[in-house]
Amino acid sequence: MAARSQQLAAALLSLLCGVSCFPLGQETKQTLTCGYESCHATKPNMLNVHLVPHTHDDVGWLKTVDQYYYGDRNDIQHAGVQYILDSVVDQLLKNPDRRFIYVETAFFYRWWKQQSSSMQQTVKQLVNEGRLEFVNGGWCMSDEATTHYSAVIDQMTMGLRFLNETFGPCGRPRVAWHIDPFGHAREHASMFAQMGYDGFFFGRLDYQDRARRMVKREQELLWRASNSLTPPMADLFTGILPNGYNPPEGFCWDQSCDDPPIRDDPDLEDYNVDDVVKRFLTIANSQAMVYKTNHIIMTMGSDFQYENANLWYKNLDKLIRYVNGQQANGSKVNVLYSTPSCYLQELHRANLTWALKTDDFFPYADDAHDFWTGYFTSRPALKRYERISNSNLQTCNQLEILGGPVSRKGPFGDGESQTMKKAMAVAQHHDAVSGTEKQHVANDYARRLANGWQHCQVLVSNSLTALSGSSAKRIYCDNLNISVCPLTESSKKFSVNVYNPLARPVAWPVRLPVNGTSYVVSDAEGKSVDCQVVPVSTSTRDVRRNRGFAVNELLFQVQAPPLGFTTYSVSLLQDGPPPASTQHRTPTAIQNKFIRVTFDPDTGLLSSLSNLETKQTIKLTQNFYWYNASDGNNKESNQPSGAYIFRPNSSTPFIISKTAKTESIQTPVVQEVRQWFAPWVSQVVRLYGDSRALELEWTVGPLPIDDDLGKELCVSVVFLQNGSLEIMLHRRLLYDDVRGVGEPLNESSGVFPEGLVVRGCLRLSLDRPPSAADAHRPLAQQVVLQPLLTFTDGDLHPNTQLEFSGLQAALPPAVHLLTLTQWDKDSVLLRLEHQFQSQESKVNSHPVTVNLQKLFSTLEVLGVSELNLSANQWKDDMTRFHWTPQTDEKPLLKTFRDSSVWEVTLRPMEIRTFLLRVSFR
Amino acid sequence: MAARSQQLAAALLSLLCGVSCFPLGQETKQTLTCGYESCHATKPNMLNVHLVPHTHDDVGWLKTVDQYYYGDRNDIQHAGVQYILDSVVDQLLKNPDRRFIYVETAFFYRWWKQQSSSMQQTVKQLVNEGRLEFVNGGWCMSDEATTHYSAVIDQMTMGLRFLNETFGPCGRPRVAWHIDPFGHAREHASMFAQMGYDGFFFGRLDYQDRARRMVKREQELLWRASNSLTPPMADLFTGILPNGYNPPEGFCWDQSCDDPPIRDDPDLEDYNVDDVVKRFLTIANSQAMVYKTNHIIMTMGSDFQYENANLWYKNLDKLIRYVNGQQANGSKVNVLYSTPSCYLQELHRANLTWALKTDDFFPYADDAHDFWTGYFTSRPALKRYERISNSNLQTCNQLEILGGPVSRKGPFGDGESQTMKKAMAVAQHHDAVSGTEKQHVANDYARRLANGWQHCQVLVSNSLTALSGSSAKRIYCDNLNISVCPLTESSKKFSVNVYNPLARPVAWPVRLPVNGTSYVVSDAEGKSVDCQVVPVSTSTRDVRRNRGFAVNELLFQVQAPPLGFTTYSVSLLQDGPPPASTQHRTPTAIQNKFIRVTFDPDTGLLSSLSNLETKQTIKLTQNFYWYNASDGNNKESNQPSGAYIFRPNSSTPFIISKTAKTESIQTPVVQEVRQWFAPWVSQVVRLYGDSRALELEWTVGPLPIDDDLGKELCVSVVFLQNGSLEIMLHRRLLYDDVRGVGEPLNESSGVFPEGLVVRGCLRLSLDRPPSAADAHRPLAQQVVLQPLLTFTDGDLHPNTQLEFSGLQAALPPAVHLLTLTQWDKDSVLLRLEHQFQSQESKVNSHPVTVNLQKLFSTLEVLGVSELNLSANQWKDDMTRFHWTPQTDEKPLLKTFRDSSVWEVTLRPMEIRTFLLRVSFR
Repeated sequence: MAARSQQLAAALLSLLCGVSCFPLGQETKQTLTCGYESCHATKPNMLNVHLVPHTHDDVGWLKTVDQYYYGDRNDIQHAGVQYILDSVVDQLLKNPDRRFIYVETAFFYRWWKQQSSSMQQTVKQLVNEGRLEFVNGGWCMSDEATTHYSAVIDQMTMGLRFLNETFGPCGRPRVAWHIDPFGHAREHASMFAQMGYDGFFFGRLDYQDRARRMVKREQELLWRASNSLTPPMADLFTGILPNGYNPPEGFCWDQSCDDPPIRDDPDLEDYNVDDVVKRFLTIANSQAMVYKTNHIIMTMGSDFQYENANLWYKNLDKLIRYVNGQQANGSKVNVLYSTPSCYLQELHRANLTWALKTDDFFPYADDAHDFWTGYFTSRPALKRYERISNSNLQTCNQLEILGGPVSRKGPFGDGESQTMKKAMAVAQHHDAVSGTEKQHVANDYARRLANGWQHCQVLVSNSLTALSGSSAKRIYCDNLNISVCPLTESSKKFSVNVYNPLARPVAWPVRLPVNGTSYVVSDAEGKSVDCQVVPVSTSTRDVRRNRGFAVNELLFQVQAPPLGFTTYSVSLLQDGPPPASTQHRTPTAIQNKFIRVTFDPDTGLLSSLSNLETKQTIKLTQNFYWYNASDGNNKESNQPSGAYIFRPNSSTPFIISKTAKTESIQTPVVQEVRQWFAPWVSQVVRLYGDSRALELEWTVGPLPIDDDLGKELCVSVVFLQNGSLEIMLHRRLLYDDVRGVGEPLNESSGVFPEGLVVRGCLRLSLDRPPSAADAHRPLAQQVVLQPLLTFTDGDLHPNTQLEFSGLQAALPPAVHLLTLTQWDKDSVLLRLEHQFQSQESKVNSHPVTVNLQKLFSTLEVLGVSELNLSANQWKDDMTRFHWTPQTDEKPLLKTFRDSSVWEVTLRPMEIRTFLLRVSFR
Repeated sequence: MAARSQQLAAALLSLLCGVSCFPLGQETKQTLTCGYESCHATKPNMLNVHLVPHTHDDVGWLKTVDQYYYGDRNDIQHAGVQYILDSVVDQLLKNPDRRFIYVETAFFYRWWKQQSSSMQQTVKQLVNEGRLEFVNGGWCMSDEATTHYSAVIDQMTMGLRFLNETFGPCGRPRVAWHIDPFGHAREHASMFAQMGYDGFFFGRLDYQDRARRMVKREQELLWRASNSLTPPMADLFTGILPNGYNPPEGFCWDQSCDDPPIRDDPDLEDYNVDDVVKRFLTIANSQAMVYKTNHIIMTMGSDFQYENANLWYKNLDKLIRYVNGQQANGSKVNVLYSTPSCYLQELHRANLTWALKTDDFFPYADDAHDFWTGYFTSRPALKRYERISNSNLQTCNQLEILGGPVSRKGPFGDGESQTMKKAMAVAQHHDAVSGTEKQHVANDYARRLANGWQHCQVLVSNSLTALSGSSAKRIYCDNLNISVCPLTESSKKFSVNVYNPLARPVAWPVRLPVNGTSYVVSDAEGKSVDCQVVPVSTSTRDVRRNRGFAVNELLFQVQAPPLGFTTYSVSLLQDGPPPASTQHRTPTAIQNKFIRVTFDPDTGLLSSLSNLETKQTIKLTQNFYWYNASDGNNKESNQPSGAYIFRPNSSTPFIISKTAKTESIQTPVVQEVRQWFAPWVSQVVRLYGDSRALELEWTVGPLPIDDDLGKELCVSVVFLQNGSLEIMLHRRLLYDDVRGVGEPLNESSGVFPEGLVVRGCLRLSLDRPPSAADAHRPLAQQVVLQPLLTFTDGDLHPNTQLEFSGLQAALPPAVHLLTLTQWDKDSVLLRLEHQFQSQESKVNSHPVTVNLQKLFSTLEVLGVSELNLSANQWKDDMTRFHWTPQTDEKPLLKTFRDSSVWEVTLRPMEIRTFLLRVSFR
């Protein structure tokens, strides 16, 4: 989930250094007629119907993104984006009245780089005249439920940057356009507002909500998307489209549709102009009944349409001619080619007040038994891989800057972060990390991430060499989660570099697969640190297959500096003590100085959790259950459970086992209770010596299907007084849920024919509400941006620098360094985020000031400019439409100024985006 | 069948009056580079692969011709010709190397008239540069088995005339192109040769013939298509295409195909250029093995392809670039955009000798049990309607000229023949009269013919008014075949105008439904003629349904002058004798002065036929049988019988009945034996008083299918010594035969839910071979061009001219007036045909001379120019490629000249086409 609840009284800021410091893209100074200037005239005394020709091009779904681009595998789905763009440009040139919008920059970018310069010039002209308009404009149209907001900001930035650099101001989208995502998050709306969009349109919302809004004419509304940020900072005008994103029934003229074309030659059969005009007027007038103004919008297009744009435009030209021709006979309907921004401009001109909305549009249901909540969990392994990749990418971005140019061209070859950035950007698509794509497409997303990481590894190695002075080979162990690392399993002496991408020091437990029974671990200063060897859990062994044969794990706690690394040396002790032994009875409790957890000795299940500092205790129990997925054979609805939709056969899940078989390990470094509920469900309840959070590391799968029942596995934690919390962990389904993907979510192909095993970790801490955020906000960031471990075999060179921090000092607790990435040769993009909501913390919910000039230890900051959130507009230049809510609660507009160019202040939940001109010290 | 066996020693003729007399189309005098001049260069030391981008656009099949044009009913089949032509023109403009051929003028004409003049100019430029080339160019691609040659000539003339008038010489197709028809007739080849084509390509031939020809490299050959016409008059170079008319496997890049596009961006997934080039070279080299020269052709297109031509051309551009790029590495394959004529030119330049072929490519089988012979009979009612329509159209054409301008604008309104001409032209399509279209499309063809005839009726009425001086309303009885004519059924006095479209007098039996029992009939001179009233056959009553209630038929013989009419008056006698009575026993024989027919008294079946003049007698028996159509459930092959394919379950048909119930009528005017074999099979054996042919009028249907067996009904006539003749009459099938039409040939929709009843007539005459043609040739023409009867109620005005002939004298017996139709305001198109083969008649197989100046009674012929058969080229200008057959039999080239401009001589089987400049006397 991208959700970041927010609130702030700060307003728009402007820095002294503006456009003149850093040219942002191609600023064309000539007078342009793109954007709102290029809209067709409307008729004030008529119903104006805005026809919006568009295509919806999934950045992967039934085919991979490149298969879609080329039109490969048309046996799966007929779709070829290269041809769509070819065709649309041709057709736009035939009639200057025609309009088209394009959305997904991942595709447009592929097309653009294959065009001749004369074609590029032609397209620029179309953009400059507003005939081709970009809307949304991110690399993809991201999912709003299963993405992390930081990756969404990154992918939007990448897409919008390309448009800005290619087309200048005329390429900047005015409208956000999420016509297909399966429900809509307030956090996305907040981001869109901060990215400078004037409005937002989407297609899918709950069917009951839609019905209510139609009656009340509230399908167009003002979304106040943050309760921390001061309005209108996170206010976003939002329109719900009338037909999802399809044309009205009977008016689809794409090659993929079968609606009758306009047959206007009286010499040929079946002249149908009168019929078409009549049907159109009926539809337009009905639609006008459920919207507020004398303007309505019709989306004339759908998935991968306009591959042969002539079919659409030829018939739309006729439709406009014949419908408007009726005005001579008294018709009061005026049809025009339009775009979402032109439509939005007319709504704005109407100067009405709009219903206010402050929460999410989740969950999304399109019928009574059809809740699109299954995809919150679908493909948990892909979801996890996407998150780890984001953490790795941020590390890669940071080290690209900290290591200097040698990072990209260094001793280990050419390294770069662009491949990984693009892989992450496509993975944000609403059929990517959402898990609603076909299996081979899911594999493609994972392959792209793996490939991107390969390129980043070279960069990271180069950078660490530059920073440490050691050119020893860096080894990456990407499979530590399943206790696989050939180096640590066999080496007698090695070192571990721990890079921390957070702007604060981090303490982190390291677990390395080993075969020795005793090791000595020393830190960067040569001091020995506590460590422990414990047997590998058999549930890890179960999933190891043929890779890795470690019998033990070496555990120790590391401390890493902010935006930097430290180094630990590990040596095998030949005659050390044996590893910690496992005990086969359930302990009544495990505890450290912060937490105590008790177990029911009869069942082996958790029974209570105590915070020893605050002296709080709650009773709780936790267990695993499975829902029997509906096969659609049901008298109430024939909806099966599938990749999108969670539809259990019954609301009552089956328990896996009322009791757990257990074993336990208790050492000063870690205490573990290992629980087995079934051959395919196990858990380690783990408490590190100095942690304030309890880890519940579950391992689930392969879900058995030999009983022909699809299964959806969840973990349930009961708060005895207030009910329970259920978290879906894994799903394995035998039927498609008829929303287009056309495959059951079985995940039993390729190298895992028997189905996937997944592992995850829940972290439990107990605190009082006024101070809970002080613990869980930093804890969450540690999980999101995890330390990266790299390994070096043998002894390190004596002159190796073992510790480094890129910051002059840690940032204050409230400030999160969200983005630090190279922008161009002499500048870097920096995003700082206030990570607390207003009033959630007594300590941290206050404005915080950071000095940008004194931020970095190795970079000299020569200049700074503030940008909008997506970095495609100077903050000074942001002038968004003003919209008035129906409930006229005037926000308390606090004026607020940074105290200097260098000292920037962040208010709760605020993210500020800066372009820094830097030099490497 | 179009077959006209032919032979003639005459050679190409030239008339004194050439281009200067009558401009033929737009003669552009500028230097043009179309045709052979515009071909791309080839490489003599390489294998040259001619890529021919093309679309095959059926003029009706699964959709009607107009549905195809507009892209309507894409739910049935995705196909929209308007978009194909839009798209191809766009794409040709993008790269001057690209080529396209277009074939079906019925579609091109529809498109052309909707284009702006600037688009028309653009297309002319493409045609003038040879980038867009017309091949075949008739209104449609006609069927070769079920069409009549005269209608094929007409439709070709219509299409080629449009091209000539629109584009001039660059619009003249050099190549005939029958890629889809289901077998190929020698007569078609002969016509194509006489139309001036340099070569002919087709796609379908018998699978065993194909295999043999591949081994012998005889897929390209010289077809000597007449044994009457002197070579090379009917010689046609013929090429059999390698893949039907499809691209080689794996290289279909239409939107309707799923083959992988060329993916040549190394940054994207699955770069496949090397693989594509390798596959292409393999295919090209294999294909070259079964053809003779270092040139091969590949048809890059198929049914209704190129609706989005960008897909094809973008990939073909790449294919050419990458395959030819291999020449730098030693590859000896050269690929180029080409056309059939450019390919043909290279074959001609090869200067080889070619295998000689003299017979048909019939029947066509594409596998052992898959003979495409069913369509010879499929939809017999449609086939019959098409033939009657042709007869009516020729009458309409003639009367348009004979009546003068008033025919088109006269007392009955605006009449015209163009609608009927177009309806007949589309009906020649190989899925039209062939009967292989969907039911609603068959209905559309019939509707078009009916509509055309409505327009012609106005013209005919106007013309007859002008010629007769009577403006009395003309009534048309189009349902005389089922004894329906409301006028004659109820009127007490009426007149019958009998128009004879033959150039010779005709004697014709008239049968009119009446309810009176006795009538007086008098001819144009007022003389009473023999007539007879007989009861309507109950088999006619069975099919009458709710139309017509005549109980009797009035019979009399009429005599009509050449190319003219005569008039008969009919009056009811109130107290005349009762109608002829029917007898319920089988007569042993019926006879007139020419013929005697005997019956077996036990069975009621025919037993012998005698020619009383030549004293010949043969024993014969005739009966009706049905084949059980295969349902495909068969161990030898799963091929069902269907619209295309005749595949009985067993080669032995079931007899309907061994005996017939009979009744007979014997009068001086007619003798009839009426036979009933089953409720759904009956026959009238009929002998008119002065006829040399016996009529067998059969009525069949609805074929019963309540036993779930498809039925194919045939009549069998046994010649005792030589075997039997079987003629398939009607078919009703329950399964589709999997050749695309997707419907069983059931014909039980709409107004005939219980299935169709059809009626036809076999004519039997007995003669010795040397004189048989003298009888059957004129007899056949009488059936093809039947007299048209029109009726006037009440008394005629006294000054009415009752008789008229458009000719000064009847043409000689060997000469048939094939075409007489208005060309433009001052000229008419005339075709004269020698209707005898060389040596088939001692009397008639000789050259005959006709004086064109003295031909017409009411037209003054001011000038004459001879044209090729399709009237799109002056005969003088015909210069066809010369091809050498392998068997070097030098034809005896007789030099031959007309004796004057006006006296034209016809040799056996010759058709000569003239444009006459005329004035109305």
